[in-house]
Amino acid sequence: MQVLKRLYRDGLSLATDLYQLTMAQGYWKLGHARQESVFHLFFRRNPFQGGYAIAAGLTYVMDYLNQFHFQEDDLAYLATLTGNDQRPLFDPGFLKYLAELNFSCDIEAVPEGTVVFPHEPLIRVRGSIIEAQVLETPLLNLMNFQTLIATKASRICQATGGDPVLEFGLRRAQGLDGGLAASWAAYLGGCDATSNVLAGKIFGIPVKGTHAHSWVMSFDSELEAFQAYAEAMPNNCVFLVDTYDTLEGVRRAVQVGHWLRERGHKMAGIRLDSGDLAYLSIEARKILDAAGFRDAVIVASNDLDEHIIDSLKDQGARIAVWGVGTKLATAYDQPALGGVYKLAMTRQPGEEWKYKIKLSEQAIKISTPGIQQVRRFFNGTEYIGDMIFDQERGLKGGSHWVLVDPSDPTRRKLVPRDSEFRDLLVPIFRQGQQVYTPPDPAAIRDHVKNQQRFFHAGIKRFVYPHQYPVGLEEGLHDLKTELVLQARGFKP
Amino acid sequence: MQVLKRLYRDGLSLATDLYQLTMAQGYWKLGHARQESVFHLFFRRNPFQGGYAIAAGLTYVMDYLNQFHFQEDDLAYLATLTGNDQRPLFDPGFLKYLAELNFSCDIEAVPEGTVVFPHEPLIRVRGSIIEAQVLETPLLNLMNFQTLIATKASRICQATGGDPVLEFGLRRAQGLDGGLAASWAAYLGGCDATSNVLAGKIFGIPVKGTHAHSWVMSFDSELEAFQAYAEAMPNNCVFLVDTYDTLEGVRRAVQVGHWLRERGHKMAGIRLDSGDLAYLSIEARKILDAAGFRDAVIVASNDLDEHIIDSLKDQGARIAVWGVGTKLATAYDQPALGGVYKLAMTRQPGEEWKYKIKLSEQAIKISTPGIQQVRRFFNGTEYIGDMIFDQERGLKGGSHWVLVDPSDPTRRKLVPRDSEFRDLLVPIFRQGQQVYTPPDPAAIRDHVKNQQRFFHAGIKRFVYPHQYPVGLEEGLHDLKTELVLQARGFKP
Repeated sequence: MQVLKRLYRDGLSLATDLYQLTMAQGYWKLGHARQESVFHLFFRRNPFQGGYAIAAGLTYVMDYLNQFHFQEDDLAYLATLTGNDQRPLFDPGFLKYLAELNFSCDIEAVPEGTVVFPHEPLIRVRGSIIEAQVLETPLLNLMNFQTLIATKASRICQATGGDPVLEFGLRRAQGLDGGLAASWAAYLGGCDATSNVLAGKIFGIPVKGTHAHSWVMSFDSELEAFQAYAEAMPNNCVFLVDTYDTLEGVRRAVQVGHWLRERGHKMAGIRLDSGDLAYLSIEARKILDAAGFRDAVIVASNDLDEHIIDSLKDQGARIAVWGVGTKLATAYDQPALGGVYKLAMTRQPGEEWKYKIKLSEQAIKISTPGIQQVRRFFNGTEYIGDMIFDQERGLKGGSHWVLVDPSDPTRRKLVPRDSEFRDLLVPIFRQGQQVYTPPDPAAIRDHVKNQQRFFHAGIKRFVYPHQYPVGLEEGLHDLKTELVLQARGFKP
Repeated sequence: MQVLKRLYRDGLSLATDLYQLTMAQGYWKLGHARQESVFHLFFRRNPFQGGYAIAAGLTYVMDYLNQFHFQEDDLAYLATLTGNDQRPLFDPGFLKYLAELNFSCDIEAVPEGTVVFPHEPLIRVRGSIIEAQVLETPLLNLMNFQTLIATKASRICQATGGDPVLEFGLRRAQGLDGGLAASWAAYLGGCDATSNVLAGKIFGIPVKGTHAHSWVMSFDSELEAFQAYAEAMPNNCVFLVDTYDTLEGVRRAVQVGHWLRERGHKMAGIRLDSGDLAYLSIEARKILDAAGFRDAVIVASNDLDEHIIDSLKDQGARIAVWGVGTKLATAYDQPALGGVYKLAMTRQPGEEWKYKIKLSEQAIKISTPGIQQVRRFFNGTEYIGDMIFDQERGLKGGSHWVLVDPSDPTRRKLVPRDSEFRDLLVPIFRQGQQVYTPPDPAAIRDHVKNQQRFFHAGIKRFVYPHQYPVGLEEGLHDLKTELVLQARGFKP
């Protein structure tokens, strides 16, 4: 089967849903291949019942687009597929078209690490409807997952209040690549290091690790195990103390700590991985302090998430470094972000743009037309609201910007027209060529942390967070309403 | 950054936790590199509060092991890592040792697709403690995720009662590889096809797909959109009918269905993707039947899982094919299987085996020593219980096998000694060489379905399932108890 080997050798252009390719063939057969289109990728609800999200995934998206082409063996595979009459699903002419397809879309996106909110496009794709359509699945896959994890990491880092967070998720992550992408997004979201060595190698982010229970078990006693570790790795000693009896383990770590100190080395800390972490960390701290190891840190792990960390902090736990695995790398309490990718505009060559909507019985699910941009307003101290507007028709006049809530049009926010602002979407590709140079990972991570100071602290609350105002520009709202009424037959 | 490109070129031997490598260096420095060890990979609770799991991941594990070696650039990266004194973490001699390391373990595993239960080893690794330790993380990653998804798929297929299930999860899956592995495991677990084209190409499993809402939106009317699709792809017509008004959409599909029929083609069906699926499927069925399209199937999708499918069935929904995405590909209600990998035996060259345990305040978390095998007993009609035993010490005598519940030693099951049985773990690698040829995917999938007939139907219940008896062989239980009492200081 050679799955992994094949994964290496293969391109990823077939990492999409079959219907993207059947639709593509449909457009091609109808002569719509040159029809221009605009799609937006966005989500409708903040994950984890929170008040914000951190956009992530763009680095992978750029890589994906730069490698995008259909290989010979991709096309050979597609040629084997058949329809319900057992005849080929794909026309040889269409496969030839795919073989020659060069990615040529214009792409805008919010920079990785930006604080974002529901309904705001994270990515805007403009170009041939065939190319834009085929990208739907991989773009959603990459952005949905990484945005989810970066957001989770940001929440966890809030809970630790600045204490370092180590990401330990690989063993429970969803696939090797799921683990790798999680390490990346968790770092951007605020984590300090990962246990995942491949992530360290590929992304250049810090890696951490010392020893497991099995190390202790492989010796005849815990003391012998700590001593052996100290001899072998004197510059990397964080002793895992809970293999047998945790507080006894701390005392044994102290014994070896003295041995290290006498030789000019340092016991960096101990790790707790089970039991009552509040009680044990407080008792362990006393033992360490009494023995003169005030600078030895207590690392804790064991199914932690932002809520458990919050609770441990409330209980006065003396934990200085937090190891977070499963709950972070899988976003355990909400393992998928419901991001979608919706058609908003089409244009036949030489014709006018047509504004497109999809209806739904739920107002929140009715799509928004236009060539969208997001404007974030600033009052000099704080961001005060985001406005989604249509770059094609432009903006409605008046003394204020009017931001209309997409789920309740009677909720509106007025923003003085002379407010400072920043438009969030920036050019990433022009006619298929990358025109954007992303900041390095550490800079993205700093940006995540710095931005948050300019938002109302209430958006970071875990329970019933403050709802940051995001609205459609009034003119866009009016146009959307008009189109919905027309589509529902209430207007001509 | 070139993440994906780099992923292709790189090996995956660093896809492990850093502590595996620091421990490995410790063993190497202490001269324990030749210490032999036995580890077992197992989980402690069935996922989804269910009564069983389906083992999956072995195909990937074999690929992983076959490609296992440290590349030059892996070692160059490790050489850059430093400890808390800013000096190198790894010794050049150890890196040279890694460079020359050839995988040489013996591996047993339960064949992919086997019905398995808590505490049963899915994989047993025996060999040099360094190699066996480094494999912990990738083996857990691969087995945890794929076992989880195969189990979820099996449950969903039970709920549909034999109706075909299509897996649509890629866009919400955790990473591209998370999506690909999910398609694989979902197929093994019982799904009929996937929307993921790359999975079709790599695994040779069936792929399905027709068109999305965006196809409909890109035309001026729904009827025009269906008609265009029918002209372009007459042998692949399943019309998505809910872009504007679902039942109107069904009527338009019927119009185009007549057009197809007149030309010798077939409308294969319609798809519902929103709204009240019970009501809409019943009404849609009436419209289709009245128009003479009795063989056009109704496909439904929209956040389905086994519980919603169960409920839709109860409500008399006329759905014939089920599209399941997010809830399957991410195992939404429990996105990680808590599988672990525990040291059970060690032996220095020329010495006796030492039986190893890890204590815990929770009895269920105390590890089991031994070189374990699982014996599944059969009474001619049904499987009646599984016994975990130690192949090193062998079996205790008596007229019956005594199976002792690992979480409650007073719960025991007697099995007549002359019962038919099958030992679940089979040899996969011998001294690093693969000795096992896996069945093809369709055969694994059939095996999943066939086996289930031989288990008490109660294990498949979604609520409070029957607990299939799994126990430690009495001798192994006694040995474990002895070791725990010793470790806790209650015995010499």
